[in-house]
Amino acid sequence: MDTWMRLMANDGSIVFGRVEDGYLHEYEGLDQPVPTGAVLSLRTLTPLAPCTPGKVVALWNNFHALALKLEKPVPEHPLFLIKPKESVIGSGVPIRRPDHYAGKIVFEGEIGIVIGKRCRNASLAEAEDAIFGYTIVNDVTAAGLLAENPHFPQWCRAKGFDTFCCLGPAIVSGFDWRSARVVTRLDGVERQNYPLDDMVFTPAQQVSLISQDLTLEPGDVIACGTSLGVGSIGDGATVEVSIEGIGTLVNALGAKTGATQDSAHAGREAVPAA
Amino acid sequence: MDTWMRLMANDGSIVFGRVEDGYLHEYEGLDQPVPTGAVLSLRTLTPLAPCTPGKVVALWNNFHALALKLEKPVPEHPLFLIKPKESVIGSGVPIRRPDHYAGKIVFEGEIGIVIGKRCRNASLAEAEDAIFGYTIVNDVTAAGLLAENPHFPQWCRAKGFDTFCCLGPAIVSGFDWRSARVVTRLDGVERQNYPLDDMVFTPAQQVSLISQDLTLEPGDVIACGTSLGVGSIGDGATVEVSIEGIGTLVNALGAKTGATQDSAHAGREAVPAA
Repeated sequence: MDTWMRLMANDGSIVFGRVEDGYLHEYEGLDQPVPTGAVLSLRTLTPLAPCTPGKVVALWNNFHALALKLEKPVPEHPLFLIKPKESVIGSGVPIRRPDHYAGKIVFEGEIGIVIGKRCRNASLAEAEDAIFGYTIVNDVTAAGLLAENPHFPQWCRAKGFDTFCCLGPAIVSGFDWRSARVVTRLDGVERQNYPLDDMVFTPAQQVSLISQDLTLEPGDVIACGTSLGVGSIGDGATVEVSIEGIGTLVNALGAKTGATQDSAHAGREAVPAA
Repeated sequence: MDTWMRLMANDGSIVFGRVEDGYLHEYEGLDQPVPTGAVLSLRTLTPLAPCTPGKVVALWNNFHALALKLEKPVPEHPLFLIKPKESVIGSGVPIRRPDHYAGKIVFEGEIGIVIGKRCRNASLAEAEDAIFGYTIVNDVTAAGLLAENPHFPQWCRAKGFDTFCCLGPAIVSGFDWRSARVVTRLDGVERQNYPLDDMVFTPAQQVSLISQDLTLEPGDVIACGTSLGVGSIGDGATVEVSIEGIGTLVNALGAKTGATQDSAHAGREAVPAA
């Protein structure tokens, strides 16, 4: 099990690597896990979103407990939408309320699969092999927009706003997701606490099945869907999503102005596991 | 009015520039319209998709005639889904039927807006200024999947397959879309012929409104939605979408095997206007 982070140095350069004992051992990249030889103290670096997905594939209705509560049958194929890369922010960066939207904004704590290799029509074994590691996702939704138009559910719009895909703080490779839980706290109060072994499609099944539809590229993320306990984030409230062994992803719902979506402004609140 | 293309040279290098009298005047790029000084004969170059969008925003129900036929009210905000960049192919490249899908595959001839400048919360005037030009889109759909699951319409999946976003052959800047028509032919027989001035949201309105939701980047494409005459593509059939002044986008529905999504294999059937 290794912990990987992407961080910014004081000169603005971006480094990616393996975290050990407070140091980052720099690597060429996700898809080229070759060490550069550089070793940097984490104290001099600002955490960023741990990868730069070209797209985020976000699943709906992928936990048995949630399907039961929603009274929907478990799907036969992953049901997904696409969140654009511009929606991605790292831990510590504020979620920005859209200027034109005063409605409910909802958190969804999730585990995220980070793709390490280009993947198309992958078998289960190839899919397993293409998973670089796991991260944490807060799949933010402008819930009031989903059903605003009765003829066209606006999944991409409601979930695609800038800053609506919080990722981080780290990626853990070799992570045993089957024994892990997702715990979400809203202003310190526990709101979600669900086991990952309740997933309908396992990570390898998700990668294999989705790769029959579209090519997955290194750095792409699959957000595996959420389970019970989703709720609304008040303005100024802070959402912490934790998975033991990966860390805690922390994002507040910022004011309309002053907040920035630039992941380069990631705060230092990120709490990686390593 | 200028015509812009992206092409591949024999050595595999990719050039982008303005087309004039059979020659390409190379430019730095879409977002940096600075000539490099190089002039290349088009005869030595293979056409590719004219831009490399990070995402394609595809509209639904954006023409009055289609809304009337569907008996749906005209929307108050653009209704859209996101097609991933891996779905993009150029003119001449075969559309690939997914291995696991034997159902109906449908063409939708459309005009596409190509973004030239990063665009967020843009006013109408800023939106107009951010439009680099217009191209042609065949927004391909695996129609049988859209409503396969009654609880979650699979817009992203049905329209997001590799090769399901045909773009090209060229981008025309300064194009007067108001007086243009989209004409789609299936194996030479006209199937769509609709005026672009029937659009619900004009291109500048689309860019402005969508930029309130998510950041548009240079090279991103908005597919403006289709109108009457959408139909099914038989295996081996060829779809030609023409807009006078831009050109003709030509794509056949290839067999399951042998076809490739690599836009580097763009054929020479592309018919740019210039």
